[in-house]
Amino acid sequence: MSKELIFGHSNPDTDAIVAAKAYSYLQNKLGYDTEAVALGEPNPETQFVLNYFDEATPRVISEASSEVDSVMLVDHNEAQQSVSDIDKLTVTHVIDHHRIDNFRTDLPLYYRAEPVGCTSTILTKMFDENKVEIPAQLAGLMLSAIVSDTLLLKSPTTTDDDKIAVKALAEIADIDVDKYGIEMLKAGTNTDAKSDQELIDSDAKSFDMNGKNVRIDQINVVDFDDILKRKADILKAMETEAGSENYDLFLVLVTNVLNSDSKMIVFGEPKDAVESAFNGSISDDMMNLPGVVSRKKQVVPQLTDVLNK
Amino acid sequence: MSKELIFGHSNPDTDAIVAAKAYSYLQNKLGYDTEAVALGEPNPETQFVLNYFDEATPRVISEASSEVDSVMLVDHNEAQQSVSDIDKLTVTHVIDHHRIDNFRTDLPLYYRAEPVGCTSTILTKMFDENKVEIPAQLAGLMLSAIVSDTLLLKSPTTTDDDKIAVKALAEIADIDVDKYGIEMLKAGTNTDAKSDQELIDSDAKSFDMNGKNVRIDQINVVDFDDILKRKADILKAMETEAGSENYDLFLVLVTNVLNSDSKMIVFGEPKDAVESAFNGSISDDMMNLPGVVSRKKQVVPQLTDVLNK
Repeated sequence: MSKELIFGHSNPDTDAIVAAKAYSYLQNKLGYDTEAVALGEPNPETQFVLNYFDEATPRVISEASSEVDSVMLVDHNEAQQSVSDIDKLTVTHVIDHHRIDNFRTDLPLYYRAEPVGCTSTILTKMFDENKVEIPAQLAGLMLSAIVSDTLLLKSPTTTDDDKIAVKALAEIADIDVDKYGIEMLKAGTNTDAKSDQELIDSDAKSFDMNGKNVRIDQINVVDFDDILKRKADILKAMETEAGSENYDLFLVLVTNVLNSDSKMIVFGEPKDAVESAFNGSISDDMMNLPGVVSRKKQVVPQLTDVLNK
Repeated sequence: MSKELIFGHSNPDTDAIVAAKAYSYLQNKLGYDTEAVALGEPNPETQFVLNYFDEATPRVISEASSEVDSVMLVDHNEAQQSVSDIDKLTVTHVIDHHRIDNFRTDLPLYYRAEPVGCTSTILTKMFDENKVEIPAQLAGLMLSAIVSDTLLLKSPTTTDDDKIAVKALAEIADIDVDKYGIEMLKAGTNTDAKSDQELIDSDAKSFDMNGKNVRIDQINVVDFDDILKRKADILKAMETEAGSENYDLFLVLVTNVLNSDSKMIVFGEPKDAVESAFNGSISDDMMNLPGVVSRKKQVVPQLTDVLNK
């Protein structure tokens, strides 16, 4: 059997890299000859995970057909998320937890998708089904991927299967999930390393709401204080940018990924529309948005509604 | 949870109908509310199987969106093989053993494909994984589907998983696989019900080979005698049709699906080219083709080669 590469999606997150490593380990135990690679460098969260469990960073590739004929995909299936030369390769296996789109094969293949929170949850089941033991370090990686994808089992995508997998993996890795998970998520939301300008730019989008030029940024944190301690400086950066870019209203949504709450820093006008949209009051340029985590679903439509009245 | 329909491909074979029944049984045990239906009437083989195990023929549907929002597919995924209004439906589960093509979803789903000989082989594993017992009658149906798809585990698509599944199902159903399997395959290749004209027409294709008008038909049997006993009449029908349709050469390939051999009835000229192509001699208007089962791969290219010399 000739060698195959296994990889997750481009711009990889923790699950994309960990699932490739885990599936490669499993497949090699089952007699395949595979190597886990990545379609990009690990992000800070993933690098923290690899360091923590003393696991090697996978080799980064930009194309695969010069070295193999066949590949196995994890954590994705859509061609535009995959390796650049996917059209020249035979996909023999896919393990994924996303919708299926822009994917086709000439030949029958092994495809396993489940609507769970994380690819590593499916892989945990597959180790069990194939009676292959998960080494402690690998269990630590897989647990990290599930914690990452499900925000410590609190995101709405979390299923019972994810919870069962985390429990089993925590026992194998001998890890206190909550303690470790918060440390890991913190590593991925390290706002201290970013300038005020980077913070208000990195995930910002502009919206035209009934003639108002509205800018909305989102920053994920595990501790509101990481941002609140810099609020005055951030507000100043917002004011400067609003002036140069002609934003009427500039909102910075600070989302605590651990408890699914947000606070919002508000610059500009109309402030009464913001208070009306989110049913609260702005105090000290800030308002609380309990239960809000999604800009797309919980911020933009509500503000658009009020400004259109 | 609202009701979902489960079905195999249109123009259903035994696996398409049996896999729908088996998956519906499993899913209902796991808490879903499903009904197995079919996209066409059972063929003679499938009807034999349903009668043998005293199982109900599934309801035939031509569209699904008037009664359900969501469906589960077995033994197919390509839209053109599915129900007519598949675009209006949400596919929540797929169990299949074919390539993936012309298939997409908006949402994550459960998809399980394996490159094995039969969908019912995958389902046999899933009953085991979910610790759900297969009732004896259902085991008989599932065994029949595997025997049908793999021609009694002898087709080149057969895998170890198919063999393991058949062994397990035969024990549950308390069936002598070879004895029952031949009886079942016979029911699906009932040539006695067809006229001589139907036999030489039903799967015939014409080929232009270097100016020669060559007609090649293929008839599947489980016993050569079913055709040999009618050879004189079939040959007469071939002669009549060759005259009216101007065939230079008319070949009827009779394939024994049980032992992967063929015999060929030959009418017309050049007979020496036929003998040369298949490395044998014609005796009594017939020649033996040991090991030949595929017209596309083992007959047409060889004869084309010789006639082009």
